[in-house]
Amino acid sequence: MAKSKFEYVRDFEVDDTCLPNCWVVTRLDGRNFHRFAEQHGFSKPNDDRALHLMTKCAQTVMQELEDIVMAYGQSDEYSFVFKKKSNWFKRRASKFMTHVVSQFASSYVFYWKDYFKDQPLLYPPGFDGRVVLYPSNQNLKDYLSWRQADCHINNLYNTVFWMLVQRSGLTPIQAQDRLQGTLAGDKNEILFSEFNINYNNEPLMYRKGTVLIWQKVNEVTTKRIKLPKETEEKEVEVTRTRTKAVPLHCDIIGDQFWEEYPEILADS
Amino acid sequence: MAKSKFEYVRDFEVDDTCLPNCWVVTRLDGRNFHRFAEQHGFSKPNDDRALHLMTKCAQTVMQELEDIVMAYGQSDEYSFVFKKKSNWFKRRASKFMTHVVSQFASSYVFYWKDYFKDQPLLYPPGFDGRVVLYPSNQNLKDYLSWRQADCHINNLYNTVFWMLVQRSGLTPIQAQDRLQGTLAGDKNEILFSEFNINYNNEPLMYRKGTVLIWQKVNEVTTKRIKLPKETEEKEVEVTRTRTKAVPLHCDIIGDQFWEEYPEILADS
Amino acid sequence: MAKSKFEYVRDFEVDDTCLPNCWVVTRLDGRNFHRFAEQHGFSKPNDDRALHLMTKCAQTVMQELEDIVMAYGQSDEYSFVFKKKSNWFKRRASKFMTHVVSQFASSYVFYWKDYFKDQPLLYPPGFDGRVVLYPSNQNLKDYLSWRQADCHINNLYNTVFWMLVQRSGLTPIQAQDRLQGTLAGDKNEILFSEFNINYNNEPLMYRKGTVLIWQKVNEVTTKRIKLPKETEEKEVEVTRTRTKAVPLHCDIIGDQFWEEYPEILADS
Amino acid sequence: MAKSKFEYVRDFEVDDTCLPNCWVVTRLDGRNFHRFAEQHGFSKPNDDRALHLMTKCAQTVMQELEDIVMAYGQSDEYSFVFKKKSNWFKRRASKFMTHVVSQFASSYVFYWKDYFKDQPLLYPPGFDGRVVLYPSNQNLKDYLSWRQADCHINNLYNTVFWMLVQRSGLTPIQAQDRLQGTLAGDKNEILFSEFNINYNNEPLMYRKGTVLIWQKVNEVTTKRIKLPKETEEKEVEVTRTRTKAVPLHCDIIGDQFWEEYPEILADS
Repeated sequence: MAKSKFEYVRDFEVDDTCLPNCWVVTRLDGRNFHRFAEQHGFSKPNDDRALHLMTKCAQTVMQELEDIVMAYGQSDEYSFVFKKKSNWFKRRASKFMTHVVSQFASSYVFYWKDYFKDQPLLYPPGFDGRVVLYPSNQNLKDYLSWRQADCHINNLYNTVFWMLVQRSGLTPIQAQDRLQGTLAGDKNEILFSEFNINYNNEPLMYRKGTVLIWQKVNEVTTKRIKLPKETEEKEVEVTRTRTKAVPLHCDIIGDQFWEEYPEILADS
Repeated sequence: MAKSKFEYVRDFEVDDTCLPNCWVVTRLDGRNFHRFAEQHGFSKPNDDRALHLMTKCAQTVMQELEDIVMAYGQSDEYSFVFKKKSNWFKRRASKFMTHVVSQFASSYVFYWKDYFKDQPLLYPPGFDGRVVLYPSNQNLKDYLSWRQADCHINNLYNTVFWMLVQRSGLTPIQAQDRLQGTLAGDKNEILFSEFNINYNNEPLMYRKGTVLIWQKVNEVTTKRIKLPKETEEKEVEVTRTRTKAVPLHCDIIGDQFWEEYPEILADS
Repeated sequence: MAKSKFEYVRDFEVDDTCLPNCWVVTRLDGRNFHRFAEQHGFSKPNDDRALHLMTKCAQTVMQELEDIVMAYGQSDEYSFVFKKKSNWFKRRASKFMTHVVSQFASSYVFYWKDYFKDQPLLYPPGFDGRVVLYPSNQNLKDYLSWRQADCHINNLYNTVFWMLVQRSGLTPIQAQDRLQGTLAGDKNEILFSEFNINYNNEPLMYRKGTVLIWQKVNEVTTKRIKLPKETEEKEVEVTRTRTKAVPLHCDIIGDQFWEEYPEILADS
Repeated sequence: MAKSKFEYVRDFEVDDTCLPNCWVVTRLDGRNFHRFAEQHGFSKPNDDRALHLMTKCAQTVMQELEDIVMAYGQSDEYSFVFKKKSNWFKRRASKFMTHVVSQFASSYVFYWKDYFKDQPLLYPPGFDGRVVLYPSNQNLKDYLSWRQADCHINNLYNTVFWMLVQRSGLTPIQAQDRLQGTLAGDKNEILFSEFNINYNNEPLMYRKGTVLIWQKVNEVTTKRIKLPKETEEKEVEVTRTRTKAVPLHCDIIGDQFWEEYPEILADS
């Protein structure tokens, strides 16, 4: 049962090395999450539990894998940016995408109960992923802007749509017809005049999505210690500085974000 | 916040369509499963719970995704064979591999407690995946033979190694030294003379791994029904024929398996 | 001026190895040959000199490069089939296509005068090329059938078109309008009733294109030798057997050709 | 003879689009040019006729194809740089490389006699080609520096080597042994002390290779015209400004070249 006779089949594996000196972006999307959301009773248009779970999974991906400099998520998708000079697994595209989606997927089930409490997870969800390369910083920023603009457009639409359904009692088809051909201004106007909602006051997480960046954070933990010459333990607070993937809900289309966090794009 | 200005970034996505008329094999491997096995107290050299969980996840993958004709697994790896003519997601390699690994990973956490009972899962595991194309049936069979020969070689080694450690009290280093340079016959001899073990009597699942193929199975379920003109319900057995991914632990290197199940390689 | 400092740029080269165990087809097409044909006064619809020159170039490619089992050409295109098991230049696609087109292009200029005599070549022509992989023999035969069916369709059209222009005095636009929507039968009928041409009697090279296969040929050459004990030289004929790329103008869509030359598809 | 039945074979063609926003470099090399040089009596270490012919072919490539911003050549190789934003043939790698090598190869035969006069070309030469992508300007400059450093290292070696063979009467093996392990300084010293040659006075074309860039040139042509009211034609000089691919033999490793010709790297 010599293995060697069959080992020629390894030559059929393809080298899928990513071009050096490019940003490696891996984006994942929930598979059939429309159905998944319905079956798990996600609140519409946004479910805080689901959004926070997504971000928890993304944080796990950033901490477990190497060389991710930031992530951006909205709805049932998340994008991870590996640094230009990353040589993780020799830059093989298949490694980037499969490690990201598998870590994300296992985390989704693992942390489900922390966010959905007693509501059971009915079945294990799937995700698809892809790798895209961006040669320049501008290309990368435009990619992230594309996703954030997408978040805005969808969220504005969904906010009005679900108001029309939930508050005005329209059927989904009627709501869809009502919104057919409307511009952003029209939708803002409907929200304001019919539902007394100023869209700009909607939560930032809904409107901007979630950016994850590495930040130094001070963690204060309480420890019980017994000092020499004392007979009783006492509680002391211990402060430790750690680097964590911290969520922000800010604009990343304009320059301000990139000026505030220049280390993200800095060569490293 | 027009999306269109940024949409040019979509042009950076690469077409990774798999060559038509080839078998598409997706193999996944556990990430750092050596450590994972230790931390979760897997019994050595084989942990039935872990092997059965792997197979449960593979069955879920086969049932949830499209066009998988068979799968083969051993240790912390599983290979899935998509049919030659599959046009699932337009044969994009990234779709094949990310759907497989994400479904497998989420299932691993989801079904963990069914196999490990009260033993908690400490953290969400990761998997890597890859796609390899095989143009001919012989190439595909040789691929699967390669994996099964690998299973045999590793399992024989591990069986002796752990006997030496667990029963003879050797340290891992000592056991490794003892086995350095030994052939299969030598290892069989050590097992027999020192531990009274006939390797050929070891469980097939350990020696051959697990093959998953589609089989029609009769499922008998019990239903309570009330027949007309009767006043009480009674229990009846209902038999339903379903197609399921059924595990086998047989040789797939020789011709017999392929002659027995010709439909696997048949054009479809 | 150390080279090593810059050598990292080699890592940007991509591995473009062709999948093993597939037929490697390289097809080339003349660049702007419509214009080239006009400027060099090619006779219409077929110019024997140009077709024979194409075939001479293809023969040169087959003799200079490795592992080509056959070629098929028509109009300003030629396809070369490398054997499945070829490992020429490690099966790199760029090597296959650039060697083929460059050898073809240089041969085109080199042998021009053998076919066009005193008519000067006005400028050096260009060709484009591509590599396509075919996993099965049937796929390969279908590829070649596709090209030969294309030859037939174009040649039938061109034959009628140029008759209408050259003999009936129609303008190209008028001829095009006349043929708009006609089927093969209609075109045969026009040829027969208006120009007394039976299309099936047109030269095979025009209707079927040119197939190049390796054949043993006896070459008879005349040598002057002086035998021992004789005072004068005398001429003798010397017969030598060589393997050459021999042109055929036959059908390759049906089975007959493949049955007659089974060695082409035989594993080698 | 329906073509449609076979047209599925087109689906086997692979999309080889080059990543956008990267410099596309196509490099070609002569095939077996060591043998070619010997058979055509190239003078050693440099043959002016051969080098000028190479440059003439490269100029033809630049003029016939689209979007080439510069080229660099030495010995039997030439690199062509397509602009970052080129969308020529939808950036398909196969188009870039096959058009370059075929145009170069046909030009080599076409212009041969302009440089080699009565010396006949014995057979049509071949070239291989490849495409490499460079995301940043620095990467591109480093690529070109790599080739120019290669030119320097080889030319210094060859200059000494052939002096030792041609003037000192060493055999090639002896010359090779003599140079084994020598540094650049050693080779300069041999040239100076033994052959009274200051390497820095060797022709720039040999030491630096040839850079081709687009330059506006005034072309003065003589026309015969007849002015109104005059009875006889007279000759007048007409000056026309044209953009041509002009050869330079300068350093491109340092900054000076790039500062002098900033338009090469400018986005266009």
